[in-house]
Amino acid sequence: MAKKPKVVVIGGGTGTSVVLTGLKALGKNDLTAIVAVSDSGGSTGRLRDEFGFLPVGDLRQCLAALAHGELEQEIRKVLLYRFAKGSGLKGHNLGNLILTALEDLYASPGKAIEVASQVFRINGQVYPITEKAVQLVTEYADGTVRIGEHLLDDPKLGGQKIIRVKISPHAQIYQQAAKSIKTADLIVLGPGDLYASLLPNTLVRGFKPALQSSKAKFVYVVNLMTHYSQTHEMTAQAHLDEVVKYCQRRPDIVIVNDNHIPKSILQAYAKQKEYPVIDDLVSTKDTEVIRGDFLSAVKVSQVKHDQVARSLLRHDGKKIARVISQLVKGK
Amino acid sequence: MAKKPKVVVIGGGTGTSVVLTGLKALGKNDLTAIVAVSDSGGSTGRLRDEFGFLPVGDLRQCLAALAHGELEQEIRKVLLYRFAKGSGLKGHNLGNLILTALEDLYASPGKAIEVASQVFRINGQVYPITEKAVQLVTEYADGTVRIGEHLLDDPKLGGQKIIRVKISPHAQIYQQAAKSIKTADLIVLGPGDLYASLLPNTLVRGFKPALQSSKAKFVYVVNLMTHYSQTHEMTAQAHLDEVVKYCQRRPDIVIVNDNHIPKSILQAYAKQKEYPVIDDLVSTKDTEVIRGDFLSAVKVSQVKHDQVARSLLRHDGKKIARVISQLVKGK
Repeated sequence: MAKKPKVVVIGGGTGTSVVLTGLKALGKNDLTAIVAVSDSGGSTGRLRDEFGFLPVGDLRQCLAALAHGELEQEIRKVLLYRFAKGSGLKGHNLGNLILTALEDLYASPGKAIEVASQVFRINGQVYPITEKAVQLVTEYADGTVRIGEHLLDDPKLGGQKIIRVKISPHAQIYQQAAKSIKTADLIVLGPGDLYASLLPNTLVRGFKPALQSSKAKFVYVVNLMTHYSQTHEMTAQAHLDEVVKYCQRRPDIVIVNDNHIPKSILQAYAKQKEYPVIDDLVSTKDTEVIRGDFLSAVKVSQVKHDQVARSLLRHDGKKIARVISQLVKGK
Repeated sequence: MAKKPKVVVIGGGTGTSVVLTGLKALGKNDLTAIVAVSDSGGSTGRLRDEFGFLPVGDLRQCLAALAHGELEQEIRKVLLYRFAKGSGLKGHNLGNLILTALEDLYASPGKAIEVASQVFRINGQVYPITEKAVQLVTEYADGTVRIGEHLLDDPKLGGQKIIRVKISPHAQIYQQAAKSIKTADLIVLGPGDLYASLLPNTLVRGFKPALQSSKAKFVYVVNLMTHYSQTHEMTAQAHLDEVVKYCQRRPDIVIVNDNHIPKSILQAYAKQKEYPVIDDLVSTKDTEVIRGDFLSAVKVSQVKHDQVARSLLRHDGKKIARVISQLVKGK
């Protein structure tokens, strides 16, 4: 049997897990997720503060996305379960607690995730971009510097232009992640928070050489909406420019949604000062722009509260997976 | 291939998991653990108070004991890991948190444990004696009544004679547990805390008829030491008399250790007013007494603190398993 093409998805967070889930359903590729480790908010942030381990939330989401087999649904439920009560437990994801325990039990975070992958029968690989827990340092146009990825979700800090993100301290790329990038047939960056989930991966030592030396097609998936506290007023081209600047390699393909987003959802987002990313992209000889319907089906009747709306608008992992699968075949 | 003989181990707690681990290593029997659900102390007690679910600690220990296959050690580590820090996490076993989440996710506690058994590849069955979380009610000779199993571990309440334990509220035996008892080839009760872990199982409706109608050999394993707050000054015969009274069936076999317990360990126990159970048993035509070395190897050099000593003295699961295996063959 021919080996399955190797697809590496780089990011962290929900966007990455959506793409992984779509690709897993197709069943045509050997999947690897590479995940940023600068997360400092929520359940992950609390655990990080108390234990000092590699942040676990994005790793957990990718593990859940790659669960498979007869017990796929049960394993997803275990990893994604969130305690709604319990002193000190409320708000924690069970998967985060499991990964924290494994980081305590095993000397290296990479080994801890490997054990989790075996115990929970993950079909693919999940790697942290580095084994060192790093903090994201954000520099704004007005000279302000803030430390901590969770601040990128704070609307009070919104509307400001980010001129640079860095990580602190310096960190080396996780060897397995580098190897996956170098030997991939196709690499997908995004969708996901540009400054919080995607670009931090590019900042570890060894990332850019790995990406540059890889023969893989390099695909960037543009976000659907701007994020007020990160990418306010940035067009698709502005997103792409940042990707090129941080990766030091042009994507071969950019995937952008051109389907209509329901008005009720746009209104809910507008209240949070978040708007569709304007598509001003142009295909060049180096970079092909692929447009299409990549929107997940949204039941407008469900949109009752602004909070709900935000979590309803998603890329459709299956639609993205179909395009990626064609790209890897045509390689 | 002939079906493996069915061995059912009834109890809860460490004693039960020691026997299960020994039997599992032999690999000759189809194993079922049946576990009391009146536990109200420690991590289990905290979760029980906050979530109101079936207590999870003893179920977790039995699941860990029955982990098998390539990942046996990893799965045992995950289930038995105890958080040493973390606000609200400290003292909780990860396996307890996993079972609590599953009890929340699935409507019936039985189903929750079944899912845990599948996800963690358990070789055998673990059943609660009932799906209803019950409290243990203890009546002492002086007329005092106390509610809550954890009080049976309180040395301040030690030295008093227990005249009766009951459960509250009334509860029906879990159907799968009843079926296992009825169709077993051999049933092992103990070792374990007599009033806290063993006898509570006998108090659910349907237990005694199941045991009485079962064609299984019924084996009772006598504890090594008295427990100051439960079985102070009780001989082996006094233990057996209670078992007969609560089960309404005489054990066919009683297993009792006759090997020498190291003096340094006896001294440590004596400080807690705990002493070897005096063997005053006599074989009868109904009940055969099997004596032998059932002591786990204890490194005396490890005995530095009294607390450590207590947890070092154990039955040897393999030695018990060998006898049980002979009994089930000779059936």
